[in-house]
Amino acid sequence: MALVVQKFGGTSVGNIDRIRRVAERVAKTRDQGNDVVVILSAMAGVTDGLIELAQKAAAEPDKRELDVLLATGEQTTAALLAIILKSMGHKAQSMLGHQAEVVTDSDFGNARILEIGAQRLRQLVAKKTIVVVAGFQGYDIKGNITTLGRGGSDTSAVAVAAALKADVCEIFTDVDGVYTADPNICPKARKLKTITYDEMLNMASLGAKVLQIRSVGFAKKYNIPVHVRSSFNEEEGTMVVNEDSGMEQLVVSSVTLDKKQARVTLTKVPDQPGIAAKIFFPISEEGIVVDMIIQNTRKGGKTDVTFTVPKGDFKRTLEIAKKTAAQVAAEEVLGDTNIAMVSVVGVGMKNHAGVASVMFNTLARENINIIMIGTSEIRISCVIEEKYGELAVRVLHTAFGLDAEE
Amino acid sequence: MALVVQKFGGTSVGNIDRIRRVAERVAKTRDQGNDVVVILSAMAGVTDGLIELAQKAAAEPDKRELDVLLATGEQTTAALLAIILKSMGHKAQSMLGHQAEVVTDSDFGNARILEIGAQRLRQLVAKKTIVVVAGFQGYDIKGNITTLGRGGSDTSAVAVAAALKADVCEIFTDVDGVYTADPNICPKARKLKTITYDEMLNMASLGAKVLQIRSVGFAKKYNIPVHVRSSFNEEEGTMVVNEDSGMEQLVVSSVTLDKKQARVTLTKVPDQPGIAAKIFFPISEEGIVVDMIIQNTRKGGKTDVTFTVPKGDFKRTLEIAKKTAAQVAAEEVLGDTNIAMVSVVGVGMKNHAGVASVMFNTLARENINIIMIGTSEIRISCVIEEKYGELAVRVLHTAFGLDAEE
Repeated sequence: MALVVQKFGGTSVGNIDRIRRVAERVAKTRDQGNDVVVILSAMAGVTDGLIELAQKAAAEPDKRELDVLLATGEQTTAALLAIILKSMGHKAQSMLGHQAEVVTDSDFGNARILEIGAQRLRQLVAKKTIVVVAGFQGYDIKGNITTLGRGGSDTSAVAVAAALKADVCEIFTDVDGVYTADPNICPKARKLKTITYDEMLNMASLGAKVLQIRSVGFAKKYNIPVHVRSSFNEEEGTMVVNEDSGMEQLVVSSVTLDKKQARVTLTKVPDQPGIAAKIFFPISEEGIVVDMIIQNTRKGGKTDVTFTVPKGDFKRTLEIAKKTAAQVAAEEVLGDTNIAMVSVVGVGMKNHAGVASVMFNTLARENINIIMIGTSEIRISCVIEEKYGELAVRVLHTAFGLDAEE
Repeated sequence: MALVVQKFGGTSVGNIDRIRRVAERVAKTRDQGNDVVVILSAMAGVTDGLIELAQKAAAEPDKRELDVLLATGEQTTAALLAIILKSMGHKAQSMLGHQAEVVTDSDFGNARILEIGAQRLRQLVAKKTIVVVAGFQGYDIKGNITTLGRGGSDTSAVAVAAALKADVCEIFTDVDGVYTADPNICPKARKLKTITYDEMLNMASLGAKVLQIRSVGFAKKYNIPVHVRSSFNEEEGTMVVNEDSGMEQLVVSSVTLDKKQARVTLTKVPDQPGIAAKIFFPISEEGIVVDMIIQNTRKGGKTDVTFTVPKGDFKRTLEIAKKTAAQVAAEEVLGDTNIAMVSVVGVGMKNHAGVASVMFNTLARENINIIMIGTSEIRISCVIEEKYGELAVRVLHTAFGLDAEE
């Protein structure tokens, strides 16, 4: 017998029939003798619909009030699932964010969980009640309703699992686990049985498709095993766990592709202390998220600074960068949206030299030019021409021995 | 400068454009120098839609969870109005039932307000913020969300007005006040400038069309002047006030018609102590609301007991009454759904004899037979054949001098 936290996303609760299927799945877990706490998202499309409604009310809806509005989405599904579970004869009860004592900061629309009291939640679980918690929502110390941002229900689930010291946090999604690469790009991609928190954190876009990245940080901090699995079948998915949990020993566990970035370069920037801050401060002030940053050393006290930003922010970033370039006496500002970032990720590369050279050689063999290189402890990313993105994923997948056996 | 509580019903907030008009109205009251607290219902039809959704989930949805679901309706409109008010440059904030500290009992779906803490509400009002309170909802001492039943937002409004010691509680509706009779039946009906709480309480169906009857009891208890007025124009409506507030002195202030009742009679019931309890206990146990009860004295220790119930409960009541009749050795059970109850209401009749005889004579003159008679301190009701209902209203309206001047 275990304490299982199960999270179901928007498509899994898209209508009453689907919520009924969720209820059956939850009931089955309960009938197997487990204590169950369920976290739900809003029905697919509902949150977007509410945002549209708010924008009809005001071009820039007040953020506090928008959260009050958005919170109704998860309140609706939580109530409906509790209704169905009770009609099936189970002890069940819904809880909203404030009832489950999900305390957050006051950053409306993108609040961070500070703590989960979970006192009543724990009492109900002890009484063998299936508790259905509305995901995505919390409240700040003043009692205002807050929401956690896109995919916030994943974070709700992991945070509740942490507060209750749950044995596992199951994330039910429309994919059946985490793959070595996107199967749409790489037909030989295969499902991973396990992956580490750090690998998930480094998989960026590929990982984010199945799990909100913020929730992974939470899971890592509290060491909560997260089971990413399909809501359509009962197969085992992928366990996201700590490194020492007896995993498959792969040097590289996945190859990812990100085509949503654009590149900006300031050339011949005077190489002085504080110059980077001058370049990036006005960009971050505008809320633009810079991903990769590369600074090349050049001769003559000048340097080139290159970085990537989301394509949607490209034009704005160019404008800002041009102003900065004038201020710091850089030569010019160049930019390119036809780029892709291909990355190999794996905790194994900490102990294996040579991953980078295999990666560079593999790309060179296909005549793919590398525009930028960036690394983290367990990831190597190359920015290449956009058109080569899919090819790069396939050849790297093969080169690192990830291809599924025929 | 005054503290004004304004309540807008479902049609007044039926879509974004209408909510915008509500915002303009609220803003105008604010700009005139008043403190304003707004109470909103859900958009017209939303509550019914949510009930339907719940019934798709389960034939008899759990009441606690249904309240969680229904509460989203008012949460939505409160957030939207706050968004619009803020976008207009006003200080505004929404509050849900639990945030406004609306404490109720735990009778889900029909909860009664026990008290309103209103501490934060009062603080916000002191800071000149327009507070938009989600009507219809509260929470019990365990923190469960509750709803107040049909028309509960009226009660929310009056209760908030009482808690804040507001100067007036304005109820905006799609009629422009309380009339001496239903204008659809009685073309000479006219709008009353004032009416007493007790008269409203005795007007039953006619009064209930403009104001939930439970809210009137609340207003009376805390002596809150209630202004029933149109949301479509700025004309004065009807003030519902205490008797001593310098009113028009009408003996009878209104004539009402109720065609929703059916009549049940048990004949030749043995006239013994406790017999009434035996008859009515099993009916109330079934949740059927008995309105008028008449017991005629008969010769030989036998009596006839007649009462009215809602037409929808007529068949069930007959079945119950037949069982009881067999148990208490009554002769037979008769019933009739073709009845109407016409009533004259007025605090003035306390000091004026002869109202009953005017009523009976007026009906007799039209050959309308009186089937049952019932009275309260300020009301006389006659049950007559249904087909004479409208005629009875018109002739009584004239007889009591209520007709509008040509």
